[in-house]
Amino acid sequence: MIQVDISFIGAGNVAWHMAQALEEAGYQVREIYSRTLTNATALADKLYNAAPTQSLDFSASKATIFFIAVPDGQVAKIAAKLRLPEEAILVHTSGSLPLEVLQNHTYSGVFYPLQTFSKQKELDISRVPFCIEATDEATEQLLVSMAQHISNTVYLVSSAERKVLHIGAVFACNFTNHLLGVAKEILGREGLEFDLLKPLIRETIQKALNAEHPAFVQTGPAMRNDQQIIDAHRAYLSTYPVEEGIYHILTESIAHTKKNL
Amino acid sequence: MIQVDISFIGAGNVAWHMAQALEEAGYQVREIYSRTLTNATALADKLYNAAPTQSLDFSASKATIFFIAVPDGQVAKIAAKLRLPEEAILVHTSGSLPLEVLQNHTYSGVFYPLQTFSKQKELDISRVPFCIEATDEATEQLLVSMAQHISNTVYLVSSAERKVLHIGAVFACNFTNHLLGVAKEILGREGLEFDLLKPLIRETIQKALNAEHPAFVQTGPAMRNDQQIIDAHRAYLSTYPVEEGIYHILTESIAHTKKNL
Repeated sequence: MIQVDISFIGAGNVAWHMAQALEEAGYQVREIYSRTLTNATALADKLYNAAPTQSLDFSASKATIFFIAVPDGQVAKIAAKLRLPEEAILVHTSGSLPLEVLQNHTYSGVFYPLQTFSKQKELDISRVPFCIEATDEATEQLLVSMAQHISNTVYLVSSAERKVLHIGAVFACNFTNHLLGVAKEILGREGLEFDLLKPLIRETIQKALNAEHPAFVQTGPAMRNDQQIIDAHRAYLSTYPVEEGIYHILTESIAHTKKNL
Repeated sequence: MIQVDISFIGAGNVAWHMAQALEEAGYQVREIYSRTLTNATALADKLYNAAPTQSLDFSASKATIFFIAVPDGQVAKIAAKLRLPEEAILVHTSGSLPLEVLQNHTYSGVFYPLQTFSKQKELDISRVPFCIEATDEATEQLLVSMAQHISNTVYLVSSAERKVLHIGAVFACNFTNHLLGVAKEILGREGLEFDLLKPLIRETIQKALNAEHPAFVQTGPAMRNDQQIIDAHRAYLSTYPVEEGIYHILTESIAHTKKNL
């Protein structure tokens, strides 16, 4: 393992899990920056010898790699303000920002964990896929080796590919989460508990993820082309135009997919 | 436990699991009907003393409760052809058919397991919610007691409520499964493995099901109202109008839900 020390700009959910995992893997964390000192201190307190700071001037830092783990909208702004030691590597952890957002730094990279983190929730980071990208081969090798010290799944992913991954995640995660919420609303209006559906939801997701392709285990009225049921469902939803619209477009899309199976 | 014997009309996935679970709970299975004798025999072979049959004439049967577990479209047709002993109870196992589909039988009911079954896949039936409905109170009590012998979660659910449950399941299961398939397609077109997204999908579903409401754990560009990312995603999807349409309507729906949180 190449001995490089690291610092974190940000003390949110991603920094919280990554700083602790990297320290456990043997990397020394030098500084934790947050706009709010109590947040920086809370994370620094979890680490062996990290200094909390509110300053973006790291010119005297002993760290080599600086992780920006702040909300997407703030990455460019903070990267522009940062003062880093010479030869430092600046890395962001975002799924949706290109590498170029860090272009005013000579050595930079992306170290993107494809997972959702909460401070309150323990998580086995060794099972989180990491997507790595860098400005040059030496940086890339350094970041890949670092990721491999905490995770079993490390991929080289270009900014263009990362954008597509992000779009896929929007469909597979953000949109599915929303549909679960819609289902809860539909049941709730009739006084039915969402709990009733949970075993079926768990089994459906498990089957979909174990299948060669989720389309191969598709079920339901759209898949069976059961027009009578579809019409009855749409009639029932007619006073909820947003839900009816979703029902219609996804039913059409399932039929369209079925035709091409 | 009231001693009633049972028979199954149908030898598919639902009959397969339910006949074995009910026999294990102490109910004797008398006959297994299937249009295809080898299917009836395959299930009967799993049971202690059940006779496979291709005849719908059960007038001499010792069974009291007859479960119709065949595809939805065939239930009414088979119910009309059946010859049952006097005082027999006819029960269907469908989520989308009303009780009235069995109305030419005096005593009838619904015994609907809210789960997806495959013969190949073991499943803990004690965790499957059962939805019970019946023409009269005595039948209802009999069916509830029977369901409670195999499952920890038994609900009385009217036909109107069951229809709403089914609509909820279409959103929460059929549609989410489809979105997982769409995500796999999007990644596949760029040569990216769907496996990359699986840990995030699992964590997302777990969070959604453990939350007080899935809307409370919604993330993503639509939730953050990140118009720049949304526009970039839609531009990327513009050559796939079905996917772009889904992206648009679900993004709008998330924004709409957020406003009402």
